[in-house]
Amino acid sequence: MTESKLSTQPYKGTRDFYPDEMQQRRWMFDHLRQVIGSYGYQEYDGPMLEPFELYAAKTGDEIVNEQLYSFVDRGDRKVAMRPEMTPTLARMVAAKGQHLQKPLRWFSIPNLWRYERPQRGRLREHWQLNVDLLGVEGVEAEVEIIQVAIDMMRGFGASPVDFEIQINHRQLMNDVFEQVLKLDASQTKAVARAIDKRAKIAPEAFQTLLSEAGCSPEQIAELENFLTAPLLEIGKICGESQGYKDLIRFFDTVNALGLGPVCRFNTSIMRGLDYYTGIVFELFDKHPDNRRALFGGGRYDNLVGMFGQTQMPGVGFGMGDVTLMDFLKVHGLLPEVKAHVDILVGLFDAEMIVQNQQLARHLRSAGFKVESVLKHQKLGKQFELADKRGIPLVVLQGPDEALLEQVSVKDLRTGAQENVHMENLIDWLQAQLA
Amino acid sequence: MTESKLSTQPYKGTRDFYPDEMQQRRWMFDHLRQVIGSYGYQEYDGPMLEPFELYAAKTGDEIVNEQLYSFVDRGDRKVAMRPEMTPTLARMVAAKGQHLQKPLRWFSIPNLWRYERPQRGRLREHWQLNVDLLGVEGVEAEVEIIQVAIDMMRGFGASPVDFEIQINHRQLMNDVFEQVLKLDASQTKAVARAIDKRAKIAPEAFQTLLSEAGCSPEQIAELENFLTAPLLEIGKICGESQGYKDLIRFFDTVNALGLGPVCRFNTSIMRGLDYYTGIVFELFDKHPDNRRALFGGGRYDNLVGMFGQTQMPGVGFGMGDVTLMDFLKVHGLLPEVKAHVDILVGLFDAEMIVQNQQLARHLRSAGFKVESVLKHQKLGKQFELADKRGIPLVVLQGPDEALLEQVSVKDLRTGAQENVHMENLIDWLQAQLA
Repeated sequence: MTESKLSTQPYKGTRDFYPDEMQQRRWMFDHLRQVIGSYGYQEYDGPMLEPFELYAAKTGDEIVNEQLYSFVDRGDRKVAMRPEMTPTLARMVAAKGQHLQKPLRWFSIPNLWRYERPQRGRLREHWQLNVDLLGVEGVEAEVEIIQVAIDMMRGFGASPVDFEIQINHRQLMNDVFEQVLKLDASQTKAVARAIDKRAKIAPEAFQTLLSEAGCSPEQIAELENFLTAPLLEIGKICGESQGYKDLIRFFDTVNALGLGPVCRFNTSIMRGLDYYTGIVFELFDKHPDNRRALFGGGRYDNLVGMFGQTQMPGVGFGMGDVTLMDFLKVHGLLPEVKAHVDILVGLFDAEMIVQNQQLARHLRSAGFKVESVLKHQKLGKQFELADKRGIPLVVLQGPDEALLEQVSVKDLRTGAQENVHMENLIDWLQAQLA
Repeated sequence: MTESKLSTQPYKGTRDFYPDEMQQRRWMFDHLRQVIGSYGYQEYDGPMLEPFELYAAKTGDEIVNEQLYSFVDRGDRKVAMRPEMTPTLARMVAAKGQHLQKPLRWFSIPNLWRYERPQRGRLREHWQLNVDLLGVEGVEAEVEIIQVAIDMMRGFGASPVDFEIQINHRQLMNDVFEQVLKLDASQTKAVARAIDKRAKIAPEAFQTLLSEAGCSPEQIAELENFLTAPLLEIGKICGESQGYKDLIRFFDTVNALGLGPVCRFNTSIMRGLDYYTGIVFELFDKHPDNRRALFGGGRYDNLVGMFGQTQMPGVGFGMGDVTLMDFLKVHGLLPEVKAHVDILVGLFDAEMIVQNQQLARHLRSAGFKVESVLKHQKLGKQFELADKRGIPLVVLQGPDEALLEQVSVKDLRTGAQENVHMENLIDWLQAQLA
């Protein structure tokens, strides 16, 4: 045995989930699964490792160059730990192509890896719910995906004042860049990046970024006018843009469904990933202590086609567990979730271990959740253990009870203790626990 | 967009879980969780990456040198993708040490990585149920762990003729090696390795391995005598060994619990990992087409102590999803598991998408699982879609029905179609689906 003492800390930017934290995580995911399942979405999963090229192709530069966990395996293949799930989804869909019955309503809750400086809401390993609807071209797909997102938040008890979904359209932005502002390709990228930062920097700093991108004062004025215009005004600027038409149809539908109050058009929403082609959105926390994007998504119509098979339109979003947990905490929506055991089978003395085990087996086969005491200690200590674990009933059988075919049951919620005949025990316990 | 075509295949030795396979995986894990939960075990999880040293210290040489996925991260830390869960468990327990209420009954279902040549039952990424009981010194812990394993198998519908648990004791083997055969340390390792291979090689090959390990003909004869002796005979050879005493007590208890028929003493069970200290066991499939170990485990009393804090005894096992799935398949114990959706809300014509979505929302809020048709196609096609997906009811509302505040419901199980008033719809549907 080695004498050097190993650290007990988890790897930087990752978490250990002890049973209490794991209960919370499961509570959160089960909750999400329930809402998503009510829309008919089916769960899928893929491998933790993917070929490096899968991300080099379409994921944003920052992730690939600065944040990707990649290495060469023992067989000389360059592989990466998945930083996001959408490329895996696209690969899987492309692999089965025509054989899958459309539309596909799929979701997954993978763990993802990014080499980040750990900070509030950002860790190196996090879990991310991914919800995707593939095979639908019209904005009905976006409407459904936004409904799923809203219903998830509502399912946790969030009210419309707690969050807001901000919506934009990539095609609208491209049309404005190219047809209205007449920017060239290199300017477009820099301007898009400046818009992405706009909410976080001073107006002067934003204008400086635009100047550096080669925008003239006229272009800057026109862009500022566009960025602050309400959606209907934008119809006058570029009413022929498919992006504008999609947004009008989208907002008409969500308004008719009564979801208007949590949806807002915002030209600053760009989304960093390269593969979005249509409507993009981000869900924001409106709490003053936590004002930031919780998650986002959008339409990616060309991603499946990059595998050279059939093209397939898609819309989806990814929601991280860390930011969601922060949201639930800051809004007081996280209940105390405790593991649940019905009965502790105590040990009267060390020699009665077989009886204790038989009794525990008997109760488990009747459907109870049962812990049993494996090492003799004073009965007071055994009751204390049950109490600390929140186990309501302690069942004990000493030699006297065994002779009478009875057990003694202590109810820690009331302190009452009673002898019960083995014949009636199951019914009696069921009544106590009902 | 890049023109080079990416492969749609998953990384070698890993699997894509499409919804059907994912349903199977979830069915299997939910099943395991239910049995384990009935014993009061609580779920935990740890990070996918751990410091390399965590495995270098105690995991077997073959895994670390030939099979470990390890690399240096962007911060120059040597890290490894976990090849097994027990070191993470030991680290987590050591970190909280005294603050955890003993005994600990913990389980986890992590995905694990080993660089293996993919073959039947062995993949590079697999999921492994880990069940561990920490803080109990006596063989009562082993008895409980074996019960959990047996109940899991029975829970899947396996009968006692389908599997067998073979049991040995590391301390007994060490005592035989040192006190009976008088082997030195280097011989012990080679002999242990030979015993590990014994079941798979010819008797002569086994004897050759022992000779090469430096065993005399007398030692070989004595060893063969020991290896084939029933447990009670071994009492005559080394009755003072703690290993022998533990085994006697263990078998007395499992026999008293009626579990004797699936438990068998077998001196060939060595277990590859370095950290076992007491009873070790493997569960074997008895099916003629699949004769092999499904999983195994044992006692590891010194693992938590390697972090320099308190020592804590532990017993546990790890069961892989690939081998378990093979077992269920070969024994015909894998049911067809299908995703379940109650209702498809059809789309009468493209203009009625808002009504269709409102109707779907209404039904979901009443607790139904509802898919909705987002793109208009002939009604016959919509019924066909529902049928293929196994959705029993299709609900439709055209302009005539809307005017009468009715919907039309088609039951695909019977072919019957009926108009139902919105006021009675929820109750009516509940009755149909009951």
